[in-house]
Amino acid sequence: MVHFALVGAGFMGNVHAASLARHPAVSFDFVADVDGERARATAAKYGARSIEVDSVFESNVDAVLIASTTDTHADLMDRAATVGQAIYCEKPIDLDLDRAKRASRAVERAGVPFMIGFNRRFDRSHAGVKKAIDEGEIGRIEMVQLTSRGPTPPPISYVRASGGQMRDQAIHFFDLARWLTGDEPVEIFAIGDALVDPAVGEAGDVDTSLVVMRMASGALCQIDCSRRTAYGYDERLEVFGSLGMVESRRQRVRDVSLYKGRKVVEDGMHPGWFERVEDTYRAALDAFVRVLAGEDLALPSLAAALAAQTTADAATLSLQSGSPVLLDG
Amino acid sequence: MVHFALVGAGFMGNVHAASLARHPAVSFDFVADVDGERARATAAKYGARSIEVDSVFESNVDAVLIASTTDTHADLMDRAATVGQAIYCEKPIDLDLDRAKRASRAVERAGVPFMIGFNRRFDRSHAGVKKAIDEGEIGRIEMVQLTSRGPTPPPISYVRASGGQMRDQAIHFFDLARWLTGDEPVEIFAIGDALVDPAVGEAGDVDTSLVVMRMASGALCQIDCSRRTAYGYDERLEVFGSLGMVESRRQRVRDVSLYKGRKVVEDGMHPGWFERVEDTYRAALDAFVRVLAGEDLALPSLAAALAAQTTADAATLSLQSGSPVLLDG
Amino acid sequence: MVHFALVGAGFMGNVHAASLARHPAVSFDFVADVDGERARATAAKYGARSIEVDSVFESNVDAVLIASTTDTHADLMDRAATVGQAIYCEKPIDLDLDRAKRASRAVERAGVPFMIGFNRRFDRSHAGVKKAIDEGEIGRIEMVQLTSRGPTPPPISYVRASGGQMRDQAIHFFDLARWLTGDEPVEIFAIGDALVDPAVGEAGDVDTSLVVMRMASGALCQIDCSRRTAYGYDERLEVFGSLGMVESRRQRVRDVSLYKGRKVVEDGMHPGWFERVEDTYRAALDAFVRVLAGEDLALPSLAAALAAQTTADAATLSLQSGSPVLLDG
Amino acid sequence: MVHFALVGAGFMGNVHAASLARHPAVSFDFVADVDGERARATAAKYGARSIEVDSVFESNVDAVLIASTTDTHADLMDRAATVGQAIYCEKPIDLDLDRAKRASRAVERAGVPFMIGFNRRFDRSHAGVKKAIDEGEIGRIEMVQLTSRGPTPPPISYVRASGGQMRDQAIHFFDLARWLTGDEPVEIFAIGDALVDPAVGEAGDVDTSLVVMRMASGALCQIDCSRRTAYGYDERLEVFGSLGMVESRRQRVRDVSLYKGRKVVEDGMHPGWFERVEDTYRAALDAFVRVLAGEDLALPSLAAALAAQTTADAATLSLQSGSPVLLDG
Repeated sequence: MVHFALVGAGFMGNVHAASLARHPAVSFDFVADVDGERARATAAKYGARSIEVDSVFESNVDAVLIASTTDTHADLMDRAATVGQAIYCEKPIDLDLDRAKRASRAVERAGVPFMIGFNRRFDRSHAGVKKAIDEGEIGRIEMVQLTSRGPTPPPISYVRASGGQMRDQAIHFFDLARWLTGDEPVEIFAIGDALVDPAVGEAGDVDTSLVVMRMASGALCQIDCSRRTAYGYDERLEVFGSLGMVESRRQRVRDVSLYKGRKVVEDGMHPGWFERVEDTYRAALDAFVRVLAGEDLALPSLAAALAAQTTADAATLSLQSGSPVLLDG
Repeated sequence: MVHFALVGAGFMGNVHAASLARHPAVSFDFVADVDGERARATAAKYGARSIEVDSVFESNVDAVLIASTTDTHADLMDRAATVGQAIYCEKPIDLDLDRAKRASRAVERAGVPFMIGFNRRFDRSHAGVKKAIDEGEIGRIEMVQLTSRGPTPPPISYVRASGGQMRDQAIHFFDLARWLTGDEPVEIFAIGDALVDPAVGEAGDVDTSLVVMRMASGALCQIDCSRRTAYGYDERLEVFGSLGMVESRRQRVRDVSLYKGRKVVEDGMHPGWFERVEDTYRAALDAFVRVLAGEDLALPSLAAALAAQTTADAATLSLQSGSPVLLDG
Repeated sequence: MVHFALVGAGFMGNVHAASLARHPAVSFDFVADVDGERARATAAKYGARSIEVDSVFESNVDAVLIASTTDTHADLMDRAATVGQAIYCEKPIDLDLDRAKRASRAVERAGVPFMIGFNRRFDRSHAGVKKAIDEGEIGRIEMVQLTSRGPTPPPISYVRASGGQMRDQAIHFFDLARWLTGDEPVEIFAIGDALVDPAVGEAGDVDTSLVVMRMASGALCQIDCSRRTAYGYDERLEVFGSLGMVESRRQRVRDVSLYKGRKVVEDGMHPGWFERVEDTYRAALDAFVRVLAGEDLALPSLAAALAAQTTADAATLSLQSGSPVLLDG
Repeated sequence: MVHFALVGAGFMGNVHAASLARHPAVSFDFVADVDGERARATAAKYGARSIEVDSVFESNVDAVLIASTTDTHADLMDRAATVGQAIYCEKPIDLDLDRAKRASRAVERAGVPFMIGFNRRFDRSHAGVKKAIDEGEIGRIEMVQLTSRGPTPPPISYVRASGGQMRDQAIHFFDLARWLTGDEPVEIFAIGDALVDPAVGEAGDVDTSLVVMRMASGALCQIDCSRRTAYGYDERLEVFGSLGMVESRRQRVRDVSLYKGRKVVEDGMHPGWFERVEDTYRAALDAFVRVLAGEDLALPSLAAALAAQTTADAATLSLQSGSPVLLDG
């Protein structure tokens, strides 16, 4: 059994709490939150004990799952690393890339196991795309298309604190692009606007954007992002190569078709991102636990966290400057 | 060039006229019809000459395409066979099986090339199913499901003259079942009702029916027929075997999807049977012409025409008696 | 909290145990099994206590979930009814219809809440079909097509004890037909064979079958069953009515498409029936618990259990006699 | 009847000849080509007469269909305009935009009916997308995604003469973007490479590219182009708006699915672009003929021809400069 403490008992904390409680090889010992009431409620629901955040790093848990607010991640990583606890950290490490790099170095020095919460890698269909690529089904990769469209724009307060659409929404897809291709961006161009809500623009951000990247291998990659659809959560991947093309299709909630008149009406997409990716949290935790148990699996790494963030920063710069931005690759 | 005369200038006659006029290896010489006006109109439209029906068998055409009313088919076959003309005859040969058999024997004795108008065999998707079966993809056939649903019931006058749903509608699918499986029915059970229009029932027929057959190999076959859908013409094949299953799916008219709210709305089926199978008439004519030119292709034969009709008769008997009917197989 | 005891700790018992342990409104108190070792293992895994079967009916649980072998169901129902415990019983009540009726009457007299384990009613896509029907989308029902194809034939010992393909496999679909249509069969014809494994035939059963039914309303219904596919578990529903047609499509495991050459290769079906219907057990338990908590939901009833079984008996008789069988309706 | 002369008897000329010969309201009078032999062969095949190119403008045809090599289009337009003949001209008018503008002005001055050969507007599924947009189904347009992937790269000689991937391949999609959105690009960025064949790069062109555009309304548009797929011709449109999203899906050649093992194998895409768009040539001609007959339909106009070409020039400039290019809009 791997003994876990969870830090953070907000929405994401509770998502992870449910996975921790259910996993057969996990002993879900502690929940901590700056809001003790929240910690107690989550702990009670899942049969864990609530403790102070400081106590987490004095406890003898094997691993800490960091799901608190972004601005606390780096410090919590430092502290867990110091006492030798394995770390599963929600993304991003820190909105400030330098701070994120410092925290990463601390974890590396400590040598503790680490996973960043790029949960989409654990989506079954996305993993099917990755498998087809790795098995050579599509040959050399030439183009990648990623679609990321959330049904409902977040509140403006969230937008202001989020670092912008590139760092908050596109970042998962910067990671997917790297993971799928095994390649690094060397040039990036982003274009966007506040088409959904002018207040997003006034907050200095965009809600609709296209990003194109040239990878080191020469492959071209495209990501489209919207903060609002009228039809639920829309995520789609397509990778085109010299021998074929593989796609993780739009996912429907049900397999129901109604034939009437000249039309066929089918059930559509998941209402929100969470319903679409819920399973990936369980799968991600399971992968982390198996690595702690000695299995040799590739987890989303410190390097992946920093690389996606570097790309997001460059994309943000391109959005602001209106020009392509070169990366070191 | 193969020189053709067309007999019959009604709806089906005009369908064939268009194919004849368009085929590069066909010289479309004559159109005949008991209604001379109709013959003239069709001839004018497609650059052929209108003649009397009798004159067809005095002309030096190579082939005659019989698309007149069913009750004239057998006589026209006799006459064409006598003068050595190749025959492409719309189904059925005759509603009376004995008469059909006599006409068949005349054609056989004359040794002229013959094709019965089972055009669905020439549907590209159905042919794809047949190809998968013939290549061993699904192993030994165990179950067959055929769906035949027309959008609009024919007029009662047509129903009365048609020989009933089994002989008029299901017959194409009796042929498809034989063709796909290379097997013969040995037992048949049909159940049906006039659920769409009571007048169909008063005319002694059904408009909604299920047929099950046991084939000589042991395979089981099911056919469902309706005379009226609320969503266009619906035809579907599914063949299940020991190594897999192959399907000719419902065919959509367009590839358009509209995502709105919790639904996806797609374009549906063809409005009528003709739009769905229009291409098959061209393909069927082409196969016939290629056989006349010496190619070795399997055409729907006299034996196929009689076999489907025998099955339709047995199905009709089962409908009427309420009991399964055995066939010789 | 509803307090539950589970009787039966075999495969199905463990499926239910997982649902009981996870349900927020359930206190999962006891597990009983004639094999005490099995009971202890399941109890330990899910945090319940193992007890003797007799002790279940002396305990103060509110409800008992019966998932033991079929031959024990009726007795256990009697005993639970006597002490006023609510009953969730796996299907069937008893292979002997008279015994099943006696047990049903005992439950009715006692007035305890009851649900039979027709879990497929709780499938999300099937429920979508039911909803479309209930909302009048397809008008008056005219035809129903149900496909039930399991990937792997059960062992011959299971076949011998199962009551045959109609009572063991088709029975879920007899229930779905009644549930979807709100109608009763009045005539049934079944045809089948041992095409997969001759040993099934020697055991007096079939592994491949077609069933057709005429319902009291006149609607026609068709069910096809196979014990072995080469492509995973295949379940499909289609209901055709005067105003449209609604379908619960074949369910794919993943949304991955690979385009290569002239083909598109997509991920196929679930490997087994359990993966396909796993979610329905959770949903079924939840419905039962909500009814115990006072909600007004329709559960699969005693009458449904007896009706499906009566139909399965009639279908078996038809299979054996080769003739259609009339039912009271 | 509209009397037509066809200029050009190469591949495209013959495509148009087949449509002209088949159209019921067209009298297909003449075929001209600088290669008299080719003109005679095409004329013979379709029952027209071959004449000298010069004679076309002395004949009394109502309309001329220009399908000769690109460098002759502008002159032929001038001559037809001068004698008052209606003009259906294959795209582009001229690779040199100034020359194209002069030819356009001549046509405008003459006031003759004109259509440029943007045949994809007449694709049934694309037209379905346009209709959904025009009926307000998706609200205000925010993003457009267009995929254009041809199966086989053209010979290098063709690449050299074509004006590059933007002017030769992407141009149809620049037109589709304008047509679908009713909007004009104001900023364009293109990125590409010779990933398929280094010789394309040596010829100064790319074979793989991504284009992003900002439209005057603020909508964002993305086009991906490849000269070589391993799976046939791939064309796809997707338009995303404030109220929904509408898609013209990848088009499959047949509706056949084979279920085997863990996979479903379906028939894939058309082998080439011509099979995919063949129907559009007939539909385009029909629209042109109907306009000549007085119907009020929107045809791809002189302005559309110039606008798409202007965009292609700007995209080419962006490809070469590596920077976004602004357009007047």
